[in-house]
Amino acid sequence: MGSGGGRLALQSVETVSDSLVLSAEELKARPLRVGRERYHHQHPFHLMMHDGKLSRGQMQAWALNRYYYQSRIPIKDAIILSRSDDPDFRRGWRKRVVDHDGDSAQEGGIERWIRLAEATSLDRKRVMCCDELLPAVRYAVDAYLDLVKSRTFLEAVASSLTELFSRDLIALRMDCLRLHYPWLSSGLDYFTARLHQAPEDARFALQWVTEHAHTRAEQELAIAALRAKCDILWAQLDAIYFAYIQPGWPPPGAFRMES
Amino acid sequence: MGSGGGRLALQSVETVSDSLVLSAEELKARPLRVGRERYHHQHPFHLMMHDGKLSRGQMQAWALNRYYYQSRIPIKDAIILSRSDDPDFRRGWRKRVVDHDGDSAQEGGIERWIRLAEATSLDRKRVMCCDELLPAVRYAVDAYLDLVKSRTFLEAVASSLTELFSRDLIALRMDCLRLHYPWLSSGLDYFTARLHQAPEDARFALQWVTEHAHTRAEQELAIAALRAKCDILWAQLDAIYFAYIQPGWPPPGAFRMES
Repeated sequence: MGSGGGRLALQSVETVSDSLVLSAEELKARPLRVGRERYHHQHPFHLMMHDGKLSRGQMQAWALNRYYYQSRIPIKDAIILSRSDDPDFRRGWRKRVVDHDGDSAQEGGIERWIRLAEATSLDRKRVMCCDELLPAVRYAVDAYLDLVKSRTFLEAVASSLTELFSRDLIALRMDCLRLHYPWLSSGLDYFTARLHQAPEDARFALQWVTEHAHTRAEQELAIAALRAKCDILWAQLDAIYFAYIQPGWPPPGAFRMES
Repeated sequence: MGSGGGRLALQSVETVSDSLVLSAEELKARPLRVGRERYHHQHPFHLMMHDGKLSRGQMQAWALNRYYYQSRIPIKDAIILSRSDDPDFRRGWRKRVVDHDGDSAQEGGIERWIRLAEATSLDRKRVMCCDELLPAVRYAVDAYLDLVKSRTFLEAVASSLTELFSRDLIALRMDCLRLHYPWLSSGLDYFTARLHQAPEDARFALQWVTEHAHTRAEQELAIAALRAKCDILWAQLDAIYFAYIQPGWPPPGAFRMES
């Protein structure tokens, strides 16, 4: 272990010499600490966004690239559904697929995200075809699908605990977007819906993880999965920041901002 | 298709209206064009390296992160071996595994890369444990393994055609490293070996692709796989540049340079 990883390694699976099972209280406190340290609310791209420092082209790059993440969410949730043999669990989880794909009564989160992208003046087909996606954003999102497919079911569920932190970020973001990017105001329905969807989802997942992570090793696996998910969110913004905040360079073939 | 992708899209599978099969000559010319446009010899991190503008800490970050790529190469080649039912092909391909893993007569490329990392003053265990790896480097390398596992066998083989371009890059790099980073000179055996290994491998793969891509659609798939591999190499350097060239920020837990 090098110096860079030392602090966080104190929380990692490998270095847990203490096998005491965490109490429910402790198990609720640990994710919050991970969130403070690793959730993407602290990413410089978000800080610039919230300070009103991004151009329309940079907001387009964000909307276009993050579309790929949004489009994969119901696939991710269907994988998790497919891995559960508990009807109660499946009933609790399937609302996520409906939330993102919509139904006859209301449009879903993917369509709402497309309308956010349209509010930045991007054409919906250009967004949906993903031709101009940053490869590094694709890799990070695909790593999320791989996580929920190939790791334990506990880890797959625990990786969704980032929703514990998303309500606060979304509430702040909506205020900042209205203030600094008023031309986006017709595209904020996605966030409005997530304000109540995300906390519901987070409660369900945290309750399930608390009840099903019986040993200290399982508890640590769950925390590590949450950290892995934070990495996945952070890496997407790294790629976007790097390509579109000057002096960046999108890789050959990726979306280019109009000068 | 947006403006950014227009030029390169002329080469993409989707937009080929012309179904004429490329001649062997044309099929050899197309990868070279992909290389000129998309190979990572043009990446700003490499340009800075070759100009002598990187610090020891930045060279450490490169060596430590690229180790993960090196460590996955024989796994990638074993996957390709496992997908072939042609003993001739397997005999031609298996040298790659030996080149990287070594044998009783000589050490392999992975060990040589570790010695390059040691020449930057990194401890070998710190490199080999991959605890401080940039998540985005991990995702890009894992996307390479996924490509050779899940796409057609032709695409898996064709993705290795980046070796067509690596000899020239390595020859240039060795001159530049000796000139600008003389403290690295004890660690260059990896590159010395690749000077003759890479062209052998590239000849074999190009010959195989030329003989086995019969239709225009197959030829285009092969070219697209080479482009996907160029993206994978480029994305690794993006992540390294972004985290370690000022003003960058490695994500929480990743290798930090000593100030």
